Amino acid sequence: MAGASEFDVIGKYFAPLAADADGAFGLTDDAALLPSADYIVTKDILIAGVHFLPRDRLDLVARKLLRVNLSDMAAKGGRPTGYFLGCVWPMSVKERQIAAFAEGLAVDQAQYRLPLYGGDTTVHKAKGAPLTLSATLFGAPARTGMIRRNGAHHGDDLYVSGTLGDAGLGLRALTKAEKFPAADKSYLVDRYRLPSPRLTLGGALAGLASAAIDVSDGLMNDAAHIARASGLAIDINAGALPLSTAAAAWLDAMSDRSESFAALATFGDDYEILFTAPQSMRRAVAMAGQVAKTPIARIGTVQRGEGVRLIADTGDEIETAETGFDHFSRAVQPGKT
Amino acid sequence: MAGASEFDVIGKYFAPLAADADGAFGLTDDAALLPSADYIVTKDILIAGVHFLPRDRLDLVARKLLRVNLSDMAAKGGRPTGYFLGCVWPMSVKERQIAAFAEGLAVDQAQYRLPLYGGDTTVHKAKGAPLTLSATLFGAPARTGMIRRNGAHHGDDLYVSGTLGDAGLGLRALTKAEKFPAADKSYLVDRYRLPSPRLTLGGALAGLASAAIDVSDGLMNDAAHIARASGLAIDINAGALPLSTAAAAWLDAMSDRSESFAALATFGDDYEILFTAPQSMRRAVAMAGQVAKTPIARIGTVQRGEGVRLIADTGDEIETAETGFDHFSRAVQPGKT
Repeated sequence: MAGASEFDVIGKYFAPLAADADGAFGLTDDAALLPSADYIVTKDILIAGVHFLPRDRLDLVARKLLRVNLSDMAAKGGRPTGYFLGCVWPMSVKERQIAAFAEGLAVDQAQYRLPLYGGDTTVHKAKGAPLTLSATLFGAPARTGMIRRNGAHHGDDLYVSGTLGDAGLGLRALTKAEKFPAADKSYLVDRYRLPSPRLTLGGALAGLASAAIDVSDGLMNDAAHIARASGLAIDINAGALPLSTAAAAWLDAMSDRSESFAALATFGDDYEILFTAPQSMRRAVAMAGQVAKTPIARIGTVQRGEGVRLIADTGDEIETAETGFDHFSRAVQPGKT
Repeated sequence: MAGASEFDVIGKYFAPLAADADGAFGLTDDAALLPSADYIVTKDILIAGVHFLPRDRLDLVARKLLRVNLSDMAAKGGRPTGYFLGCVWPMSVKERQIAAFAEGLAVDQAQYRLPLYGGDTTVHKAKGAPLTLSATLFGAPARTGMIRRNGAHHGDDLYVSGTLGDAGLGLRALTKAEKFPAADKSYLVDRYRLPSPRLTLGGALAGLASAAIDVSDGLMNDAAHIARASGLAIDINAGALPLSTAAAAWLDAMSDRSESFAALATFGDDYEILFTAPQSMRRAVAMAGQVAKTPIARIGTVQRGEGVRLIADTGDEIETAETGFDHFSRAVQPGKT
């Protein structure tokens, strides 16, 4: 990037991404002006070597950055309206990489109608400084308000959208700790690299789900967030976990079925919606899934007490040694995440 | 930080900082909910080794993080209402450092009545990964709207608050490239480490200043932002630059006065407000300064044309080889910034 200034880069690659944002002023001011409204706000950071692989294509990294934030918005029942972007580039960054990154943003901005409102872009000279990305996403809450984590009631059902464990297996496939058939590997890796935020489903669940969260830290960990915030316990039926064909094939090939269930229940990066709803709402939940064209599985129940238990078909509790992806205790490591 | 999880750290150190923020939900949810309003939003990143020195005390770094964002808000005439925080800690971080960082945030949150609304906290394992901090600050615009960069008119006066160049000299003193008397060094270093956002002045300038920006990239560079956005040129009188006693003493001791003026005009990190206003507003501007108890100096004029010129008392233009602190072309280096 010799010769290019921060302002050149912003003008050439980022200002076009702000063309549709009224209060962004083409990124030519110090601040943006958001129109008067309630706002749901979420902020997630992605770091090379922690949340994505350093050799990942930057257009996909850009889209993942938006999508992990969109996934939070989806779980809260919100409709995204815009975002702010923070980039810290390593000194070695090439202009074509910034161009690819901006192109990825453009693709998903178009898909999700999500203009860029502002941000900050900088370079770090230190050797080993990783690409670090941050997005602050704004959205409009549903008429019924934001779906909270703390609204689960005793007796509620626990549901999850889509399938679980794919992204974790995709990461294992990428880091070569495990072998998969080529078609399965391709599917699993896509699920790791490019999550699908469940925005339509999230909107349909507003006023219906009693609590919700997106599965980013792993099923057990995220269920624990709902349980703790609601002051209750959650039991999850391992046999009810929705699995893709690829994940089911992997599970069948494993010698220790309990250990494999435990792995699927603690992988991170699924970006599905985990939510609770009263039993009286089962038909309504099923309809929400149909409207959103998103599969929904009923996987457990909310109980008195505390903690989260993963229970096998035999009725025995399955030990899950780790309660999910904890950014403070480990990073991306082959075969460990 | 062995043993402590992201959630422990958030609960212990960051949740108390969100106690006064209604829609922050004690940092126990995925997102925050901001009440219905117009919002000015600004986002600035600070990186160890670029924007502060790796050995700087983390309570001061925390306060600088808030203050550089508050300075943007001040220049836009806004009143800050809350912020989101992003932290990427190096693996080597000690819990007492996180505690010191949170303590610094608490001090300035109290001073500026600025609750924490949410954010993301993570750790990077890679050797050499620098502490990286990001804040997204929200505020209310003045009744007359946000002060923009692009409103300067031909014939307007150019003003700056406080004094210029202190922070740059403070950085030189810290990096030992230059010697200063002890009292001067202490003053200059404080100006580098702990800027004073000019919030009261910014509020008083709303509806009065035709354009404004805070001086973060250096006077020449930030004046160029106003000039470019307004489609005009700016002439700055070097002799009119407001200097502290310490900076004036430094200037007097220099052999090449023009070169020294050029340095003062291109140092970054002053976090003063640079603004334009019609000549008819001179009394009103002076009163705004008095109300805000902030010195204001008239240092130049807005002209037809383009670019920014620094002019000596002789009438000659002073060459400024570099147009300020550019995060894409260099980092903190002894004697270079």
